[in-house]
Amino acid sequence: MKVTYDSWQKQYKTPFGAIQANTLVTWAIAIDQPVQEADLWLTKLNEDPVAYPMNYNDETQKYETQVRVGSSGLYNYYFAIKQNNQMFYVDQGLFGQGRLRQDDHNLKQYQLICYERKVPQVDWYDQGVVYQIFPDRFANGNPYGEVTGRKKNSFLYATEEDTPYYIKNSRGEITRWDFFGGNLAGIRKKLPYLKKLGVNTIYLNPIFLATSNHRYDTVDYMKIDPMLGDEDDLRGLIHDLHQNGMHLLLDGVFNHVGQESIYFQEAIKDKSSHYYSWFNFINYPEKYQSWWGVSSLPEVNKSNPEYQDFIYGDHGVLAKWMKDQVDGWRLDVADELPMDFLRNIRNRLMKENCQVMIGEVWEDASDKFVNSEYRPYTFGDNLTGVMNYPVRNFIVGLLTSENSDAEIALMNKLALLVEHYPTNFLRNCLNNIGTHDTVRIKTALQNDEKLVLLAFGLMFMLPGVPCIYYGDEAGLIGDKDPDNRRFFPWGRESRSLIAQVSKWINVRKQNPVLVKSKIGFLHIATGINAIVRYDEKVIMVYCINKNKAETVLAKENFAFYCLPKTIAEEVAAELDQTKLSGEDSILRKIPRKANIG
Amino acid sequence: MKVTYDSWQKQYKTPFGAIQANTLVTWAIAIDQPVQEADLWLTKLNEDPVAYPMNYNDETQKYETQVRVGSSGLYNYYFAIKQNNQMFYVDQGLFGQGRLRQDDHNLKQYQLICYERKVPQVDWYDQGVVYQIFPDRFANGNPYGEVTGRKKNSFLYATEEDTPYYIKNSRGEITRWDFFGGNLAGIRKKLPYLKKLGVNTIYLNPIFLATSNHRYDTVDYMKIDPMLGDEDDLRGLIHDLHQNGMHLLLDGVFNHVGQESIYFQEAIKDKSSHYYSWFNFINYPEKYQSWWGVSSLPEVNKSNPEYQDFIYGDHGVLAKWMKDQVDGWRLDVADELPMDFLRNIRNRLMKENCQVMIGEVWEDASDKFVNSEYRPYTFGDNLTGVMNYPVRNFIVGLLTSENSDAEIALMNKLALLVEHYPTNFLRNCLNNIGTHDTVRIKTALQNDEKLVLLAFGLMFMLPGVPCIYYGDEAGLIGDKDPDNRRFFPWGRESRSLIAQVSKWINVRKQNPVLVKSKIGFLHIATGINAIVRYDEKVIMVYCINKNKAETVLAKENFAFYCLPKTIAEEVAAELDQTKLSGEDSILRKIPRKANIG
Repeated sequence: MKVTYDSWQKQYKTPFGAIQANTLVTWAIAIDQPVQEADLWLTKLNEDPVAYPMNYNDETQKYETQVRVGSSGLYNYYFAIKQNNQMFYVDQGLFGQGRLRQDDHNLKQYQLICYERKVPQVDWYDQGVVYQIFPDRFANGNPYGEVTGRKKNSFLYATEEDTPYYIKNSRGEITRWDFFGGNLAGIRKKLPYLKKLGVNTIYLNPIFLATSNHRYDTVDYMKIDPMLGDEDDLRGLIHDLHQNGMHLLLDGVFNHVGQESIYFQEAIKDKSSHYYSWFNFINYPEKYQSWWGVSSLPEVNKSNPEYQDFIYGDHGVLAKWMKDQVDGWRLDVADELPMDFLRNIRNRLMKENCQVMIGEVWEDASDKFVNSEYRPYTFGDNLTGVMNYPVRNFIVGLLTSENSDAEIALMNKLALLVEHYPTNFLRNCLNNIGTHDTVRIKTALQNDEKLVLLAFGLMFMLPGVPCIYYGDEAGLIGDKDPDNRRFFPWGRESRSLIAQVSKWINVRKQNPVLVKSKIGFLHIATGINAIVRYDEKVIMVYCINKNKAETVLAKENFAFYCLPKTIAEEVAAELDQTKLSGEDSILRKIPRKANIG
Repeated sequence: MKVTYDSWQKQYKTPFGAIQANTLVTWAIAIDQPVQEADLWLTKLNEDPVAYPMNYNDETQKYETQVRVGSSGLYNYYFAIKQNNQMFYVDQGLFGQGRLRQDDHNLKQYQLICYERKVPQVDWYDQGVVYQIFPDRFANGNPYGEVTGRKKNSFLYATEEDTPYYIKNSRGEITRWDFFGGNLAGIRKKLPYLKKLGVNTIYLNPIFLATSNHRYDTVDYMKIDPMLGDEDDLRGLIHDLHQNGMHLLLDGVFNHVGQESIYFQEAIKDKSSHYYSWFNFINYPEKYQSWWGVSSLPEVNKSNPEYQDFIYGDHGVLAKWMKDQVDGWRLDVADELPMDFLRNIRNRLMKENCQVMIGEVWEDASDKFVNSEYRPYTFGDNLTGVMNYPVRNFIVGLLTSENSDAEIALMNKLALLVEHYPTNFLRNCLNNIGTHDTVRIKTALQNDEKLVLLAFGLMFMLPGVPCIYYGDEAGLIGDKDPDNRRFFPWGRESRSLIAQVSKWINVRKQNPVLVKSKIGFLHIATGINAIVRYDEKVIMVYCINKNKAETVLAKENFAFYCLPKTIAEEVAAELDQTKLSGEDSILRKIPRKANIG
């Protein structure tokens, strides 16, 4: 018996991927012989499986069923077939293709996200390119490069070329913080550079008063850290950004505060302080719940109504900064915030006409569990997107892999993400090839700038909003934290890389197909792979050769994934016999034949 | 039998203390009965003891002998007496007083230094007051306080109020150097402050190009460290100093260089380099002899003629900087430099008309042995003086002691030093109550500024040149290195302490007796002690009460040491029944009665 199912092809499942609640979904499987019975088994998380009988459709020659999926949730499905009184099962193989099995142990079921509502599409955001800045490390805009607002008993790097260094005591605890002295004025001063580069949105790591250089240890949510400037500097920056058609995302760190915060300090000074209940003391005042056990980051009790009001109330932190026309927020450790806390933040932002709320979630956000509890991040009523670390894993993996199987597995993993995420949510994801929390892309790629360019190319080809970690476009290197937070190499930039990245930003601007379209994959040989994006009018294909040796592409070696046959054929025809140098790429735009004439 | 001898009284020994070679010395002992035989046993180091018979002098009623001590050396002596065919011995008790003993085991012999030549007396130096500056930590003279000449991968303190901190890795090695950014321009800018304070000489810790903030790890002896300025800045500083009747001492660090020095780097890069022979490699290039095993400070082979020429040749380091009119030198770890190396430095300095060459020797410099070899530092042909740490030990001891015995022992120890050192050498010693290598005086005295003032008073009362460690006069605190190297507390100075220290500088200027005179001690009670200085015309007595309680001085409690009876009586008459508050002092100037009428 041969059974065919492919969740990526509309003849088998429609609509593709995640669906909104109350959508009628059609499933169809092709079987090469008549069978006694065929069922779709659909299971909603925490509910009993439900079998939907599939009927043979003469016209399509498939067994079909239609289900109106009524309520949002995390669903899984597979198919069961009875033939000759024997049971067969179809679960998920690579790239959505059904896999016929004779037993039902450890079935790898298909996942189906049914979301509550669509996340909004915000043109400036989802068509744009974001630039992430770690504020201490980008630029100093003071007249003589002096560092203002210095913190007592902290250190300043002697030169902008210094390599970052954690100053620790013999117990490994950080004893002094190290600063380069970048500030808001510096960012403002460098807007012409950013505008010329082509990015239209800046995402800033935290800027509120804090103790450390990363500022994830907030001291006062209502103040700009004086090393960075003051509220006027922020307003000035936002003004200049908006004047230039650019936008600003801030980093909201609401899971924990700094040990030196005015809140925690009050709480430990005075048990009767109203801040006392913000924290979970285990043995007052010495022992308290803190983020990952890091005592300098006391965790806040997010179920405390006063704290909730402080964050998202009418006069809270978010309301305050939205008055300055901030355009969106990235939420630190979003997966440690309760769902209702997230929903209420979203509600507050919507009231303030803010539609961008990106969560820090490192994994596939569609099926994330925290303490055995499902977190419905993709359902549309909380986050509007997540930081897309899986994209980085895919890109770095593809550029450092050593065999075809690994490359195909990487593509498959990315295809799963595309299938899981609601389309709008996927488009809203903030893609990256490096952040303040990862090894820099150039270092991850053995300082090979040609590979770095391929990494950028891949990022620009994938669905989601490309986010450039400051300096990556300039060839900045850096191992894991703190080395990945070097100062921007002004005057020592890789001008050629900047030019190429800038070109990619233009490609994205000129080709909406890169923003809103379907995706497919092409594997040719180890190290030689392509991403295909297509819509009704156009196909764009980006083929990379990460190997040192030149190659000539030959269509007999092409293995397409997730693509309709027509698209695959057009791409094959376009690329066949093309010469591709080592560590080089080809980007082709193919008008759809269907539209010719 | 009662025997009397007192090396401090001229009726028993003359001249007092150390003597120049070829001086006729008279010794006399008083015995309360006729004896069979009395001998002075005089031993020159590494020679056999020589017995000089002592004859009874009817006129003085003492047993006497005269010896012309011909050659310089370290001598020891005691007396042997034969009576009733039994032997008795007289060795050294407290304050030079003879102690009668019946056996000759472990005799504590008197020490006699016979020096080669007198060290020069330089008026500006020995009548002056020196101010020691750790250049990174005093003042920044740049227009906006910016730090110039920054070293890559070093740290700058965020504020001048920061507490110094060693940045070390988990193995305890210093991995980055920390700088406040003081410089020569800053010192120059603060000359009005120093002039008003009253000091007339500045001693600078090293200023040549180096890696660290202390700059004892020289990189290039021929260059000023660019963080401090350039040679023009040095010349400018010297010009301003001389215009104001002030002078400059530099720190000569010739025992070792920095690992990053141009010399050592050449040596390890290329075995055929002429610098190779400057160092003692144990296992080239990894293992080499270094100062106290500190690998960042490779020791130089001082017997290398090329290195010798480099330091004290006609075109060497000393010759170069003497061209800029430097007034004197302090020699780092002088006791690790060979004697001939020191003598040749002295010869070079004399050629350059420089008469001040102070060695870093922490102990009594008259009887110091290094690797079992005697170091004749006080002989006049090498060092002209030493840093007088014993003075600090005496002062801190006296102000923190808890019983009279300890205080008397401290006075006795200081008396020994006075007796051992040639007079001119003693006058040339650079006294201190704290340096860059000790806990700061205020911290050593439990932050009690009243005691700090007493410490300054004692320093000004003792023979030698007072040297104020920058900031001590302003009430700066600091525990051991690195805490003792805080930045000068501009704007946060203790103005009252500065005023009092300034007064003491004036007292010294107005009273030559504090520069050139004899000394004696007075113990009254635990915590109540006095220093007496006197010459033919005047007595100055400084009496301190370190206790919290007020006291009334009563002469029946006075115990005088090292003083002629007449002086003791005049002091007793002056101080008797004087009220002395707790943590306070009395300074009295008494014209000698002998000069009245």
